[in-house]
Amino acid sequence: MIQVGIIGGAGYTAGELIRILLNHPEAAIAFVQSSSNAGNLVDAVHRDLVGETSLTFEADPDLTKADVLFLCMGHGKSKEFIESTSIPASVKIIDLSHDFRLKAEGNDFVYGLPEINRELIRASKRIANPGCFATGIQLAVLPLAAAGLLKNELHVHAITGSTGAGQAPSKTSHFSWRNSNVSVYKAFQHQHLGEIRQSFQQLQNSFDFDVNFVPVRGNHTRGIFASVYTDFEGTAEEAVKLYEDYYASHPFVFVTSENPDVKQVVNTNKAVLYLEKHGSKLLILSVTDNLLKGASGQAVQNMNLMFGLNEKVGLNLKAVAF
Amino acid sequence: MIQVGIIGGAGYTAGELIRILLNHPEAAIAFVQSSSNAGNLVDAVHRDLVGETSLTFEADPDLTKADVLFLCMGHGKSKEFIESTSIPASVKIIDLSHDFRLKAEGNDFVYGLPEINRELIRASKRIANPGCFATGIQLAVLPLAAAGLLKNELHVHAITGSTGAGQAPSKTSHFSWRNSNVSVYKAFQHQHLGEIRQSFQQLQNSFDFDVNFVPVRGNHTRGIFASVYTDFEGTAEEAVKLYEDYYASHPFVFVTSENPDVKQVVNTNKAVLYLEKHGSKLLILSVTDNLLKGASGQAVQNMNLMFGLNEKVGLNLKAVAF
Amino acid sequence: MIQVGIIGGAGYTAGELIRILLNHPEAAIAFVQSSSNAGNLVDAVHRDLVGETSLTFEADPDLTKADVLFLCMGHGKSKEFIESTSIPASVKIIDLSHDFRLKAEGNDFVYGLPEINRELIRASKRIANPGCFATGIQLAVLPLAAAGLLKNELHVHAITGSTGAGQAPSKTSHFSWRNSNVSVYKAFQHQHLGEIRQSFQQLQNSFDFDVNFVPVRGNHTRGIFASVYTDFEGTAEEAVKLYEDYYASHPFVFVTSENPDVKQVVNTNKAVLYLEKHGSKLLILSVTDNLLKGASGQAVQNMNLMFGLNEKVGLNLKAVAF
Amino acid sequence: MIQVGIIGGAGYTAGELIRILLNHPEAAIAFVQSSSNAGNLVDAVHRDLVGETSLTFEADPDLTKADVLFLCMGHGKSKEFIESTSIPASVKIIDLSHDFRLKAEGNDFVYGLPEINRELIRASKRIANPGCFATGIQLAVLPLAAAGLLKNELHVHAITGSTGAGQAPSKTSHFSWRNSNVSVYKAFQHQHLGEIRQSFQQLQNSFDFDVNFVPVRGNHTRGIFASVYTDFEGTAEEAVKLYEDYYASHPFVFVTSENPDVKQVVNTNKAVLYLEKHGSKLLILSVTDNLLKGASGQAVQNMNLMFGLNEKVGLNLKAVAF
Repeated sequence: MIQVGIIGGAGYTAGELIRILLNHPEAAIAFVQSSSNAGNLVDAVHRDLVGETSLTFEADPDLTKADVLFLCMGHGKSKEFIESTSIPASVKIIDLSHDFRLKAEGNDFVYGLPEINRELIRASKRIANPGCFATGIQLAVLPLAAAGLLKNELHVHAITGSTGAGQAPSKTSHFSWRNSNVSVYKAFQHQHLGEIRQSFQQLQNSFDFDVNFVPVRGNHTRGIFASVYTDFEGTAEEAVKLYEDYYASHPFVFVTSENPDVKQVVNTNKAVLYLEKHGSKLLILSVTDNLLKGASGQAVQNMNLMFGLNEKVGLNLKAVAF
Repeated sequence: MIQVGIIGGAGYTAGELIRILLNHPEAAIAFVQSSSNAGNLVDAVHRDLVGETSLTFEADPDLTKADVLFLCMGHGKSKEFIESTSIPASVKIIDLSHDFRLKAEGNDFVYGLPEINRELIRASKRIANPGCFATGIQLAVLPLAAAGLLKNELHVHAITGSTGAGQAPSKTSHFSWRNSNVSVYKAFQHQHLGEIRQSFQQLQNSFDFDVNFVPVRGNHTRGIFASVYTDFEGTAEEAVKLYEDYYASHPFVFVTSENPDVKQVVNTNKAVLYLEKHGSKLLILSVTDNLLKGASGQAVQNMNLMFGLNEKVGLNLKAVAF
Repeated sequence: MIQVGIIGGAGYTAGELIRILLNHPEAAIAFVQSSSNAGNLVDAVHRDLVGETSLTFEADPDLTKADVLFLCMGHGKSKEFIESTSIPASVKIIDLSHDFRLKAEGNDFVYGLPEINRELIRASKRIANPGCFATGIQLAVLPLAAAGLLKNELHVHAITGSTGAGQAPSKTSHFSWRNSNVSVYKAFQHQHLGEIRQSFQQLQNSFDFDVNFVPVRGNHTRGIFASVYTDFEGTAEEAVKLYEDYYASHPFVFVTSENPDVKQVVNTNKAVLYLEKHGSKLLILSVTDNLLKGASGQAVQNMNLMFGLNEKVGLNLKAVAF
Repeated sequence: MIQVGIIGGAGYTAGELIRILLNHPEAAIAFVQSSSNAGNLVDAVHRDLVGETSLTFEADPDLTKADVLFLCMGHGKSKEFIESTSIPASVKIIDLSHDFRLKAEGNDFVYGLPEINRELIRASKRIANPGCFATGIQLAVLPLAAAGLLKNELHVHAITGSTGAGQAPSKTSHFSWRNSNVSVYKAFQHQHLGEIRQSFQQLQNSFDFDVNFVPVRGNHTRGIFASVYTDFEGTAEEAVKLYEDYYASHPFVFVTSENPDVKQVVNTNKAVLYLEKHGSKLLILSVTDNLLKGASGQAVQNMNLMFGLNEKVGLNLKAVAF
């Protein structure tokens, strides 16, 4: 059994990790760290876990008990933690923040998108888990980039559920405001654009086009619906074949022949893609669950790869469907 | 024109008052007070008012400019404000908090439920505006109490929209938690039980039965759906006649012959009641908008009465319906 | 008083018209026609109207009683109705379907978007009321077109509430499916593209660029959030001035300096626009209520203009805000 | 492996069964029958199953391939099916309709609520799976009935998600109507009252009190929140002990010490109960997922028992939580 330690255990992504890991046949939770909740029962915070665990949050767990640490703290905090903490060299790390996603001198983390870096992930000890928007958008584009077919700017519009913003209260997370509401934020400037561009360039060196991205706050809790379009010279059938070939060996990504909806994947680690050709443009729709394929599910997928398991182990999750 | 001053202008009930008063043909807003937002534009806080007002919040308005003050501060704050502020004797007061709802020595406020106290309100200078749950539940029961027909305990279950809890962030107001969720709070102990019992006793001196009240947090923003049942010896037809007679002169309360839904009244000052007889029990369903008939709409209805206007003036509001 | 007849009175847009007209100071409802509901009370179908009207639906009303007819039947039905019905020459017509929106030989209807055709509307007897998406998207672009500044293709993404699809049941209108869901339909092929392009060409003859439009089914009932971007050479300030100048005389359109949300305008006839410049592109966000500015509110605005009234009469509607 | 046949495979409960069974380690789906969808892919109807199954619906499957049949047709249809179909004697049956829930001469089905009939279920070949409301309400009351402590009428209010009403379109399942809405139906007359009373009498022969039940249509898709209160002479602590003892051996029912919410159990087979004492009354809150513990999850729990498996096998489902 893989012994798992979770750092920053009170937030949404940590809760989701715990939900997955409690049923993972090859992993056990060694500890769940939380400064603010130390001493409290885990199921008093993640209340759906009632009856499933008797774990309590620990302030300063013994890190040597873990084979792998999941870092679920806020952005910027992972770097701080790693710099200030003595982590045994044998302990693998999967970081869910954006701290190590961009390549930089001295950054030895591998970008943990299995659909682009699977072999690197298998060989790595440190993974930077991708952002939620970044995952949904990249999956919609990777086959084009891998084939060197990005020939013009991309137009991206993606609608996210509220859990993407975490549990800190804010004006835009207030139910009275957000219910039945729609709004845009950080248009053309979302922080995930960096990792998105980096991946496109990894696959297609020459890539230097604009990625016009309008992120939308949706009126739901889970799921990202991304629509992407760009110039594509081939036919719809050629596009579908390109995508099916690219994802043939990737067990969580599916190309569908019907207009998709986000509830097809909510509470699963799946991504569903759908393609249409209009004039000179290829439209790609992509649906993912921001807390699973967009965060904690993908983190477990990465863990599976790092420990030599089938990447699907523990991730055959029942969709909520409704 | 009635000159209106609003104290505590940044909250939900104040916003709703402003929305109504900007279109009220016999009233004008003299000032909107807010300590936290002094100097800010009113439509920067109540953003739906864009294009409708150029008012700014004032910290210390000149109270002599007002004919009537609406107090929209938190519970407990109205009493403090009145005790610490020199309010000209000519200025009428309508308080939306619970500070003056219960009869007590030295409390000269009239309980502002027009369907029980209309003549007193007309003659009064100080009104304690009822609570939202209290309004919906009382309207479901007043005809029975007025006829001395309450013979046993009452069973009350009422589901409220999130705006009833105001805009302060809390765990239960977070969209990620509240969306698609249902929960109960303060069962049998809600603070509105005092004013509810007080009204029943006003109409039926002998009333001394339990009011079993289970309040529910609904997954919507506006509207209270109350179901009430108690023993009733007559037929359904007799009950309907009793209710229709009682409310014949009250322009906002309607007895319907179809099972109601809360969106029939959302964004209006109306209450819709519906009656069924089952065995020995009379079931009364009552739907109201917690921010209108349950708060600011009723406050304006009270203002209309206090200033000798028809109580409907300014309150012919278009339902949102969907 | 303008005597109004409504043809096809049981649907959503008819209900909304009735809600507005019952409080309109210069109009009265002469009759509400419905074949399927003939003989039924209007408030038995539009249940929020309880207590506001005693009208019943009529199968074959006397059209001479009306000064103006609103046609609220399905698309294709208006043409049929006009061809098969003897309508007195003096009776004005406002058609809410798409039957007469596109210019064609023999089509003497004026396209009823006051922000482009106000003077024509005032002089017209027959109005083709614009589509809901078409309204929100055009308002986002008209100032650019009027200034001849459309220089490249447009990228449009718009999310609509469910009422835009009417009340006929369908898989995508089922609550269990649609709640918390997001999906796209008719991408690049929505039927409103015709009227949108027609208006752009009316203002900027040379306009011949693609309008790439991705329509989205949102998880709310009312409101359209449209985001549009295209090339623009000027600064953000210049764009704001262009828009403010264009809409200075139009009382329902506002340019705001804050990122908008759709609930700012729900249950009002307003449109709120917001501009940002990013690189070479101008982003315009536009929020409207699809049943009001996108349908019945705009229809009443057109009626006001046709009868020489101020276009705002009867349209000072209280926002639902939450 | 248990070979499972599903009859009536296109509806909500069948979809949920398939979701569970595809990941059940001891069961395999032999066939999914559907008349209306014969020949179609199962994942074309239950679209979240994309990538998980290549099954197609069959009109007339070979029933001998199955060890157990789940009947997922509408109420009334199960009886018809059994009477008109030659089902091999060895094939077990779990019926999800209400056709066999009430004891009657010639009805050899066991009522499939494991928390009351576990041993009977283990020995049975035919199970009548309980109704969704009936499950949530009974679990709130069974310990009292088993101890003979029901001494007066019960007051029950339960709010259900829309999936409880199935996928047939109706006025009250239309998103535009139901979103943000609340309504009551079949008050005091819901069809589940029969099975509820039958179970109470099974445990407490003398039970003959009213069960006053107000069912509510909630504004969510999954989950039932039931509140029940009745007279109870003991203390809150005694009640908690009574409930904990009763459910100690039942792995899906938990007594919690915090006010519960329905999303604690959505997408799981769990029931969470919570108790409070107020005056002479005991309040019990009960949350369940109507499609799982209230339907298909419980059906699989029954299958597990009938085939000698641990009742939790295949039912360690990840909560959706948000």
